[in-house]
Amino acid sequence: MKKTLIIGASGHIGKMTTKQLLADGKAVIALVRDKNKLADICSDKLQIVEGDLEKDFSQPFADCDQVIFSAGSGGKTGADKTMLIDLWAACKAVDYAKSANVSHFVMVSSIGADDPSQGTETMKPYMIAKHMADEHLIRSGLNYTIFRPGLLTDNNATGKMQTTRPGNNEDMTINREDVANTLTYAVGKSELGGKIFELFNGDKNLADILN
Amino acid sequence: MKKTLIIGASGHIGKMTTKQLLADGKAVIALVRDKNKLADICSDKLQIVEGDLEKDFSQPFADCDQVIFSAGSGGKTGADKTMLIDLWAACKAVDYAKSANVSHFVMVSSIGADDPSQGTETMKPYMIAKHMADEHLIRSGLNYTIFRPGLLTDNNATGKMQTTRPGNNEDMTINREDVANTLTYAVGKSELGGKIFELFNGDKNLADILN
Repeated sequence: MKKTLIIGASGHIGKMTTKQLLADGKAVIALVRDKNKLADICSDKLQIVEGDLEKDFSQPFADCDQVIFSAGSGGKTGADKTMLIDLWAACKAVDYAKSANVSHFVMVSSIGADDPSQGTETMKPYMIAKHMADEHLIRSGLNYTIFRPGLLTDNNATGKMQTTRPGNNEDMTINREDVANTLTYAVGKSELGGKIFELFNGDKNLADILN
Repeated sequence: MKKTLIIGASGHIGKMTTKQLLADGKAVIALVRDKNKLADICSDKLQIVEGDLEKDFSQPFADCDQVIFSAGSGGKTGADKTMLIDLWAACKAVDYAKSANVSHFVMVSSIGADDPSQGTETMKPYMIAKHMADEHLIRSGLNYTIFRPGLLTDNNATGKMQTTRPGNNEDMTINREDVANTLTYAVGKSELGGKIFELFNGDKNLADILN
C-alpha cells in the first residue's frame, strides 16, 4: 500500500492532515520528535517514527511513496531555527525524497515566499527560508506541489477556498483545517505536479481550483 | 576599461582587495553603505557607490565587468541578518550580475559551506546561508569562482597558501590579507571559472594552487 510520510505530523496542520488521511483509509508514516504528541490517534494504518529534523532523518523515506513537508520552526523561535528547520530541514527532506525516488512531494510553503524582498522586516527572514526551500524543491527533479497559504487562522474548515489573491490584504486568511483538507486532497494526485498554489478562504471547491 | 564591483568594500577583506586592485591600476566600483569608510583611499580609478544590501542595490552592476561579493553580516549580528545579508543579498547580487551579463563573479564563501550539516550548533545557520548562496551562484549560469577561506586571522599576508585541508583542524587558518591577495589575483582570470577553492595558510604561490 502506498504510504504518505508527513514531516511535522505533530504540528497543527500536520496532525489534522494525518487524521484526515487515516480517516480516508490511507496509510501514514508520521515523523515527529515526540511520539506522545500523537498518542490520541489510534489507527493500524499509522506508523509513528521519532526523528530530529536537525539531525539525519532519512530513515522513514525508504518506506513512503509520497511526502508532505508541513514542519515549521514556529513563530516563537529565532531566525537560527528558521534557518535550521524551515530552510535546511526542508532541503534535506527534498534530498532524501529524491534519493528514495518518491512519486510526489507536497510542500507547505507560505504566501510571500515568491518574492521575499517585498516582505516586512519581521517576516523577511522566514520568507527567504521558504523561498530558498521551494527553489530547492523545484529544481530537484521531484514531482512537486507547493502550497502557499495566506495568514493562518484556527477557525473550522469551510471546505471553500480560492487560489487567487483577494483584493484586500485583510482577506488573505486561510483556516489551518482547510490547508489540511487541501494537503489531504492533493496527496497522490500526480496531475498537480509541477504546480504552485496560493491558498485563501474563498467560495470554491478544491476540485475546481486545483488543476 | 573593465571595472570590478566589490560588494562589501568597507569590510576587512573588501577594503584590502579594493586597495590592492587600485594599486595594480585596476578600476574599482566600491559598493558600501557609508562612503566615509573609504575616505582614506584616494584614487581616480575608485568609484564609490552607496547602497543598502537589504534594499535594491542593482544600480552599479550595469557599469562593471567583474563582481566580488565579500560582504558579510559579521559575527556580532543574529541569524536574521545572516539570512538577509549572507544569503539573500548574495543571491540578489548573483541575479543582478546575471542580468548585467558580467564576465566573472567571485564569491567569498566559507569553509564548511560545502556541508553545513557537519557544522557546530553555533556555526550551522551561517554555513547554511553560505551553502545556499553558493548553490544559487553555481546554478546561475554565471562564470563563477568560489573561495572558501578557513578561520580568518588578522596576521599580515605571507603570500603563501594551500587549497588542500590541513590535517590538523587547528591549522585551518588563513590571513584576511591573503584572502584579499587571492581575490585580487583571481579577478578577470576566466580560467578559474566554474571552480571552488578552500583557502588556508600554506607554502605555495597562488599561481601554483589556483588552476
